[in-house]
Amino acid sequence: MKSGKTVPAFQRSVGPEAKPFLQALSGKALTPQPVWLMRQAGRYLPEYRATRAKAGSFLDLCFSPDLAVEVTLQSIRRFGFDAAILFSDILVVPHALGRRVGFVEGEGPKLDPYQPSDLSGLKPGEIRNSLLPVFETVKRVRRALPADVALIGFAGAPWTVATYMVEGGSGSDFGAVKRFALGDPDSFQKLIDVLVDATAEYLVAQVEAGAEALQLFDSWAGVLSEPEFMRWSIAPTRAIAEKVKAACPGVPIIGFPRGAGMLYADYARETGVDALGLDFTVPLDFARALQTRVPVQGNLDPQLLAVGGEAMRRAISDILDALSGAPFVFNLGHGVLPETPPENVAELVSLVRAGPSA
Amino acid sequence: MKSGKTVPAFQRSVGPEAKPFLQALSGKALTPQPVWLMRQAGRYLPEYRATRAKAGSFLDLCFSPDLAVEVTLQSIRRFGFDAAILFSDILVVPHALGRRVGFVEGEGPKLDPYQPSDLSGLKPGEIRNSLLPVFETVKRVRRALPADVALIGFAGAPWTVATYMVEGGSGSDFGAVKRFALGDPDSFQKLIDVLVDATAEYLVAQVEAGAEALQLFDSWAGVLSEPEFMRWSIAPTRAIAEKVKAACPGVPIIGFPRGAGMLYADYARETGVDALGLDFTVPLDFARALQTRVPVQGNLDPQLLAVGGEAMRRAISDILDALSGAPFVFNLGHGVLPETPPENVAELVSLVRAGPSA
Repeated sequence: MKSGKTVPAFQRSVGPEAKPFLQALSGKALTPQPVWLMRQAGRYLPEYRATRAKAGSFLDLCFSPDLAVEVTLQSIRRFGFDAAILFSDILVVPHALGRRVGFVEGEGPKLDPYQPSDLSGLKPGEIRNSLLPVFETVKRVRRALPADVALIGFAGAPWTVATYMVEGGSGSDFGAVKRFALGDPDSFQKLIDVLVDATAEYLVAQVEAGAEALQLFDSWAGVLSEPEFMRWSIAPTRAIAEKVKAACPGVPIIGFPRGAGMLYADYARETGVDALGLDFTVPLDFARALQTRVPVQGNLDPQLLAVGGEAMRRAISDILDALSGAPFVFNLGHGVLPETPPENVAELVSLVRAGPSA
Repeated sequence: MKSGKTVPAFQRSVGPEAKPFLQALSGKALTPQPVWLMRQAGRYLPEYRATRAKAGSFLDLCFSPDLAVEVTLQSIRRFGFDAAILFSDILVVPHALGRRVGFVEGEGPKLDPYQPSDLSGLKPGEIRNSLLPVFETVKRVRRALPADVALIGFAGAPWTVATYMVEGGSGSDFGAVKRFALGDPDSFQKLIDVLVDATAEYLVAQVEAGAEALQLFDSWAGVLSEPEFMRWSIAPTRAIAEKVKAACPGVPIIGFPRGAGMLYADYARETGVDALGLDFTVPLDFARALQTRVPVQGNLDPQLLAVGGEAMRRAISDILDALSGAPFVFNLGHGVLPETPPENVAELVSLVRAGPSA
């Protein structure tokens, strides 16, 4: 890796068409590579913890535009990332559908477990109204961002959101949701269909409010066997991509089917997403093969960012060397961990901006 | 799938060279396919729960030959599987090395978290002495098995055993063990080296006691990135395979790097194992490609076995159709779940014995 000096984002070409992140998603291979990090707004930053302390519950934070705008922008100010991602949570969708969603400190989300008989109680018509504060956050962040920094909206993919709804939280073995999907696929399909419509509407409304790209998080895609993956990850994602593209032509969608392994290739071919988020188990050779079809984004192990030092530097260099010749966005393979020293993040950004080794 | 009648294991050819399970591992494509299930001795069986109640702790059960022999044989009597697997636990190795290992009902294993400074306290010389009751169980099971049923010995692979040792149990995010391996790889290598030697010695002693095949469970291989997988899963597995093959030529080793995704191909090529256990996320096309190199074993989703019915029947049929033309052992892609109705297991065995559809 070159030890060359960092090129700050603001010194590169500006203007809406020229945002490096959007250029990469549109198929351009750039040097330096654009960079942002999943969960770049989060507990590893002291300024986040200070803002977090001002909100009551975690959902209060998501639904308070003043605070949500602030935490969205904090990591942009500190590190100069090429993209900001809306600060929110994938569980605002089941919340807007009328399900009870809470966050217990240190235990993660708790929901009333969804039963097939709960279908008629879901309120898909409430998405836009219930989530007005989120759209307000999107609007304000867009206005506040530097001219060359793009704004990413996001949602959970239906399978992943359904796992939380059925398990009632982050289940360890996904037994309840898998038994539901395998044992009563017709009822499960009805839940997925509601989530497809609600998620598409939610994403379209984010674009209308100012989001310039979208990411769909299928965080638990990796627990599905091949036929399940086809039905519960690929098919709903394709349906959402079609709806969003019909309403918002030209807005790129990044699909992130975490843990999909070799099924990433089917996902790339069949969903219609514009780019792939790669988790850290994806080998770089395979990532390069995927990159011949779509731009890719990833995939440093967040534990390496937390550990830092030579191991982190070598891994960043390997990723840049492997993936810089084609459209690529540097990111982690999963979210930033709370114990990550912020100075490691600063070093990562400066290494990415220095570019691949000659 | 044919609805033809079941061919019980005991009506097929007998004699040590002719055990169908061993024939398949030696590269023969058989019809019907041999079948056994990971965790076939377990809580889903009322007779297991009755025997379990006679032991104090879970380790007491593993270390009482009378009881361990009984639970090993129960599923063979009931279902006529083609292989029995020693009833034990992968954590008997850290226990024999001198680490404190306990099992808390409903919470899984608890260990004193291993620190680099604990290295000198490990007692690799104690493996054979400490685990005498396990070898006694192997001896007695071998004598008690029907002539055409093979006996499988097993151990955890070093990476997987190390995760439990360092996390102090089944950690949800593997943060401690990954930070250790990434941040202090030299100390972690020393732990892995001890585990390689201890595991190889343990497996050789199982063969000497009567095990006819071995399975190496790398249950947490799926949380490793590619370079970590090469170093912490493939390299130790290759070292164990070399040691075991030097001492016990001709005894087949099944490697099960659960969740390895496309890295299964590297694992098959580089470890020297004789067969691959496939988890249920491995697509059947890829399984077939792997099968051109080594026999494969797998990979029904255990949730499908718990759910049963048409979904289970279709999945069994798909697996048999895809993999029966080459050396293959039918199994699950993970262990039998406690809530599995035993009658579903009986139906699975009868469907496998009926063979693939014409």
